[in-house]
Amino acid sequence: MSNTSTLALSCKNQPGLVALVSGFLTENGADITDLQQYADPISGNFFLRAEFDWNGADHDKIRNSFKQIADQHSMIWSLREPDYAPKVVLMVSKFDHALGDLLYRMRIGEINMNVVAIVSNHPQNVLTTSLMGDIPYYHFPITKDTKPQQEAQVKQVVTDTGADLVVLARYMQILSDDMASFLNGRCINIHHSFLPGFKGAKPYHQAYKRGVKMIGATSHYVTEDLDEGPIIAQDVAVCSHRETPDQLVAKGRDVERRVLARAVKAHLEDRVFLNGQRTVVFEA
Amino acid sequence: MSNTSTLALSCKNQPGLVALVSGFLTENGADITDLQQYADPISGNFFLRAEFDWNGADHDKIRNSFKQIADQHSMIWSLREPDYAPKVVLMVSKFDHALGDLLYRMRIGEINMNVVAIVSNHPQNVLTTSLMGDIPYYHFPITKDTKPQQEAQVKQVVTDTGADLVVLARYMQILSDDMASFLNGRCINIHHSFLPGFKGAKPYHQAYKRGVKMIGATSHYVTEDLDEGPIIAQDVAVCSHRETPDQLVAKGRDVERRVLARAVKAHLEDRVFLNGQRTVVFEA
Amino acid sequence: MSNTSTLALSCKNQPGLVALVSGFLTENGADITDLQQYADPISGNFFLRAEFDWNGADHDKIRNSFKQIADQHSMIWSLREPDYAPKVVLMVSKFDHALGDLLYRMRIGEINMNVVAIVSNHPQNVLTTSLMGDIPYYHFPITKDTKPQQEAQVKQVVTDTGADLVVLARYMQILSDDMASFLNGRCINIHHSFLPGFKGAKPYHQAYKRGVKMIGATSHYVTEDLDEGPIIAQDVAVCSHRETPDQLVAKGRDVERRVLARAVKAHLEDRVFLNGQRTVVFEA
Amino acid sequence: MSNTSTLALSCKNQPGLVALVSGFLTENGADITDLQQYADPISGNFFLRAEFDWNGADHDKIRNSFKQIADQHSMIWSLREPDYAPKVVLMVSKFDHALGDLLYRMRIGEINMNVVAIVSNHPQNVLTTSLMGDIPYYHFPITKDTKPQQEAQVKQVVTDTGADLVVLARYMQILSDDMASFLNGRCINIHHSFLPGFKGAKPYHQAYKRGVKMIGATSHYVTEDLDEGPIIAQDVAVCSHRETPDQLVAKGRDVERRVLARAVKAHLEDRVFLNGQRTVVFEA
Repeated sequence: MSNTSTLALSCKNQPGLVALVSGFLTENGADITDLQQYADPISGNFFLRAEFDWNGADHDKIRNSFKQIADQHSMIWSLREPDYAPKVVLMVSKFDHALGDLLYRMRIGEINMNVVAIVSNHPQNVLTTSLMGDIPYYHFPITKDTKPQQEAQVKQVVTDTGADLVVLARYMQILSDDMASFLNGRCINIHHSFLPGFKGAKPYHQAYKRGVKMIGATSHYVTEDLDEGPIIAQDVAVCSHRETPDQLVAKGRDVERRVLARAVKAHLEDRVFLNGQRTVVFEA
Repeated sequence: MSNTSTLALSCKNQPGLVALVSGFLTENGADITDLQQYADPISGNFFLRAEFDWNGADHDKIRNSFKQIADQHSMIWSLREPDYAPKVVLMVSKFDHALGDLLYRMRIGEINMNVVAIVSNHPQNVLTTSLMGDIPYYHFPITKDTKPQQEAQVKQVVTDTGADLVVLARYMQILSDDMASFLNGRCINIHHSFLPGFKGAKPYHQAYKRGVKMIGATSHYVTEDLDEGPIIAQDVAVCSHRETPDQLVAKGRDVERRVLARAVKAHLEDRVFLNGQRTVVFEA
Repeated sequence: MSNTSTLALSCKNQPGLVALVSGFLTENGADITDLQQYADPISGNFFLRAEFDWNGADHDKIRNSFKQIADQHSMIWSLREPDYAPKVVLMVSKFDHALGDLLYRMRIGEINMNVVAIVSNHPQNVLTTSLMGDIPYYHFPITKDTKPQQEAQVKQVVTDTGADLVVLARYMQILSDDMASFLNGRCINIHHSFLPGFKGAKPYHQAYKRGVKMIGATSHYVTEDLDEGPIIAQDVAVCSHRETPDQLVAKGRDVERRVLARAVKAHLEDRVFLNGQRTVVFEA
Repeated sequence: MSNTSTLALSCKNQPGLVALVSGFLTENGADITDLQQYADPISGNFFLRAEFDWNGADHDKIRNSFKQIADQHSMIWSLREPDYAPKVVLMVSKFDHALGDLLYRMRIGEINMNVVAIVSNHPQNVLTTSLMGDIPYYHFPITKDTKPQQEAQVKQVVTDTGADLVVLARYMQILSDDMASFLNGRCINIHHSFLPGFKGAKPYHQAYKRGVKMIGATSHYVTEDLDEGPIIAQDVAVCSHRETPDQLVAKGRDVERRVLARAVKAHLEDRVFLNGQRTVVFEA
């Protein structure tokens, strides 16, 4: 992986963009190894992600050159250098299966990230995973009355750490509109249902009551509309009449953690693009 | 299969029912080969399905004997003799992929049923499947004003044929409460979404708009509450940002037909039991 | 779809190919809407597929121009014009679930193809599907002794019809090396197991005996090595201890037909590329 | 769960066994809540698993009474009392994703077990999971020459701890025939391929080379025939041409750990029965 750079961008579609971008890369000495491009016929948006090997590239110089192209076409774009590990803040409440799973995947090298802080509304000793090592742990209790102050504390951590991404790994507090807005486009949540089914609280109990034959989980960007943000990844598991709500909760943990890991990995590899209320996800 | 009988029953749970039923069968000469029983700890209901070989059994005599046990415990029950092919009415509108699939599975012996009528609100020549052979085809057009009369025609067919089951194989008309009530417990629908997501019309277009990463289908018993009946089977298929609503419709057909086939087969093999708003489905 | 052209190509990788091809298309007036490119770091091969809208394009002129680029880089390539329906020969023996399914998908417009012949070693009346309409049906019986003659007959049909693709839709005869070679790269088979498990005859019976918990199907290009050709698509279905070999056969039909349909559709849309013994499949 | 007992048994089939067993339970005051029975028509074997509530039951007395029935029918059987946590020895080499996952599921109560020892041929500090707490850890290095001695050490741990089950959680040593025989019926392995495909070493590299479109994992009982033991659970994950062998290894970890967890949980809940070279697994 270590000499592969990534360019990801989106903008309004117009003829010639693929040639323009690939031409730019080639002229600057990049060897494109994996390019995916898609122009949405319905939204009129254009999406491109390219991986390339670039011996002796001067990324800052390239970045400055490409900025002119990008500005001209009002692109949202990023250029990722080899070996950069994005900074991530993980937020959690009492259930730590998703948190522990992300930390494990980081540890074994499956997800390339640098967890700069763990934030919880509960003290560290309620958690059962023991992979947290010496990652700074912030216990910010929250009540109805202290929500603004608590969110200010969280913002401070995000700002101080320079976090690229905030992951709500079963953080069971609803973010205020202000907080959602602050984290817009850089905050991923895992909802423990196959959205749009079973929004809101206790989705497994809702699923039990409705008698569905599969339970699911959904990872999405956080927006001001609760459980309505653009979906990044979903998956399901078969369940039977024998399973009580508690057993669905247990089974669901597996789905949740793998769906969240997939979404986080895709985002950190610049594979996810906003396309209105939808996402474009270029597969690995 | 041909010397296997099936007894299926549900009632309020009480200790001793498994011993009672299995004892009855054994005393009457049955050799039980596959028995599944479940007592729901939450609803307090009891469900049992037994397959058994019964050389030289007199089913009528057995039925009369068992009736006493059944009455005593207020059981809902059925005793199916070997080789009985349940009578089925298939209803369809313009999309005939599910209809054609059911007919094909019947023809190759995968689903044991006897389709006694096909009913549609469209003429036969709009359908593309050609497996209908000489099954009686009833074209009952429907408008807002003629709905009561049309439903009366359908009821007549159901009654005249002695149908055990009515399958809505993409029949795109909403049944009246009266009709739903008439068919209660013996009418299976396929809804082209992963319920409870995307109820109502054009679910694939809803799914596209919401940007889900999997589409699904749900087979359920028809009740007076639209798209709310007890679920029998569900399945999903992965989709991508590249797929337009039309492509989702095409992909969804595959899911719909296999989910409907699974539900119809399970029902006709007496594997499905109502448990309040949920179902118990003993797997094959 | 109808004004979308497709260019698909593979060759040895070298820097600049994406820019070269996309530049060529743009200069000639094409608006690229969906491009996928991949350079395999292990084999060193390069693959590209582009869809583009091309108002008033002169495909013959473009084809001639591109030929020079293609020759220079020893590309294997194809340029598909809008609305071209590839010519397909379907081969079948006694089990016609896959055949019927392909015909149905063609009829409803899901797979864009033109079935120019159905070839079987059995007479048409052993088949249960009735979607064959007036497609020419060739009954070429085969015995050990007449295999060369029979294969000559098949070749004649393939040649006379100008078939782009031959699909073995549960054609249960092993092709001779000569025949496999004749159809190299344009013949797709469905094998009723999850290869490389259970090669050869009666895979469901082998699967039963081995006690696997999932059965599968594999669609692959036919080569001289039986059941060893490059894999295009695979899928599985869960099975249980209750299922006898015959029930596995029935369940497997569903998997077979959807796996074969997926492979045929991908091939006909120029999404499949040979990469040594492996394939590159750009997803729809 | 806490007042539910479980009786599980297998023997040669004969008429009347369900009535016999359920009658016995009922007469002794048990309230059967979940019973699954299956008589395999091909092997002629009979399998039954019953859960029941048993207020004030004297399990030892019941065990003695049932022993007579069991002996008479040459049953293999077990009666599990509420709250018993089976003793488990986990074996591991360098990859600890499956080990860490099992420990996590134990910790959160999803799998009811008591891990009495962790045994490895590597020192504890090569492992990245930190859930091992104060579970006794045995580092028994192994070389070709010291295999008999090492296996003797393992046997000693198994014997001393009174382990009910040994789990090879990516333990990368092949057991000797003697060891396999010693652990017969109480040792579960996870193989990192969809058996019978890709037996032996480096299955993901084999899978890459063969170009399969799905990778899988298989959990099975260990027997003297390497990778040939009776299968308990299997699952797969979709993969693409983009994934290198290393990426398949990473993706496979997810499948491995959930397949192993499913098999271990099923075994410990007495849901798995040997049926010749196959297994019967009553679903939860």
